[in-house]
Amino acid sequence: MTQTNTLPLPTITAFERSPDRGRGLARDSRVRWALEEVGQAYDVRLVSFAAMKQPAHKALHPFGQIPTYEENGLTLFESGAIVLHIAERHAGLLSGDANARARAIAWMFAALNTVEPPIIERTMAMLFEHDKPWYAERLTLLDERVHARLGELSSRLGDADWLDGEFSAGDLLMVTVLRRLESSGLLANYPTLSAYIARAVARPAYQRAFAAQLAVFTEKAVGG
Amino acid sequence: MTQTNTLPLPTITAFERSPDRGRGLARDSRVRWALEEVGQAYDVRLVSFAAMKQPAHKALHPFGQIPTYEENGLTLFESGAIVLHIAERHAGLLSGDANARARAIAWMFAALNTVEPPIIERTMAMLFEHDKPWYAERLTLLDERVHARLGELSSRLGDADWLDGEFSAGDLLMVTVLRRLESSGLLANYPTLSAYIARAVARPAYQRAFAAQLAVFTEKAVGG
Repeated sequence: MTQTNTLPLPTITAFERSPDRGRGLARDSRVRWALEEVGQAYDVRLVSFAAMKQPAHKALHPFGQIPTYEENGLTLFESGAIVLHIAERHAGLLSGDANARARAIAWMFAALNTVEPPIIERTMAMLFEHDKPWYAERLTLLDERVHARLGELSSRLGDADWLDGEFSAGDLLMVTVLRRLESSGLLANYPTLSAYIARAVARPAYQRAFAAQLAVFTEKAVGG
Repeated sequence: MTQTNTLPLPTITAFERSPDRGRGLARDSRVRWALEEVGQAYDVRLVSFAAMKQPAHKALHPFGQIPTYEENGLTLFESGAIVLHIAERHAGLLSGDANARARAIAWMFAALNTVEPPIIERTMAMLFEHDKPWYAERLTLLDERVHARLGELSSRLGDADWLDGEFSAGDLLMVTVLRRLESSGLLANYPTLSAYIARAVARPAYQRAFAAQLAVFTEKAVGG
């Protein structure tokens, strides 16, 4: 990756300690991947869970989360918005054709507003309700909702490589959302989606992004 | 509203019967409002709940929902993507300043990926778990999550009229999300947010959009 200008690099924030033990699910992975796809170098500032909720970080991110993105007087939050910002300013993540570009953006919103919410709801239940008497019954209900989305997504994808023509920011976000299910067993019914994920994570840009995020966890783990 | 060209109007889809009895919460309201803000006339095609799940509609919307948006060979789904598409092609919903525009888009994603999911989860629990023995305990938990978001949003808004400078597509989506809580009582703690919603729904474009959506319900109710 070569920098062709002398501006300061964009800076993103990421977790100081990996909540998923380096599985690559934290939302900075989306931004790292997008930056790697377009060949833009970046700096990372690590923040602790405590620091995220302090005023200094909340000035960057109103909801006290990561990632944030800073460049030349612009501060952004929301991984979807940051990926779109990167995709709009560099080639590689959105088609030059206006209609194909609009459809890729529709897939970005679909990933984050239609597919991810039932998956996050299921994860939250596993984290916070696993010892409740209602857990088994609710999990069945949540699995059904996730299956409904996966079935529809799988049908639409069919035997195509990507959701709409070339690989786009829509695929990037959708794959990061689907990866949240890798340990759930729910993807087993959808070989089409498993192949889609495998195809995406085999991309060199994904591999570089994953390794960079993992290195934070590994170094921390070694360091103590 | 004046049409200045002879192209066919964009066509959106909306529910044939209002699931909220005309309260204006169905997602076509976002698209109607955006179109009214920018002064773009549109056609509406009403679809039944059964028809939404049929192949003809799923060809337009992979998840079998509304709204969709069709114009000149382009078909879009996802209300967020449709609102962004409209905002990019007309003045009035995104700033001409590149940084302000990017920040408004961050608020669009925040509305749909950070604020809406816990609100929808709460609504789903009210619809599908109200007769379960665990309902009261879960509702408390869900209310806490919604309150966390509302508190952060209220703090960021402060005494400003809108989330970032002028009214934008970010405010439009955020207000439609917050309106889902109007009957919950949860907004009572946040006079700042209640005033924000009131300011938005007083806009003539919102009023026209609401009236157009309500007319579908009213006419259906009268008709049978």
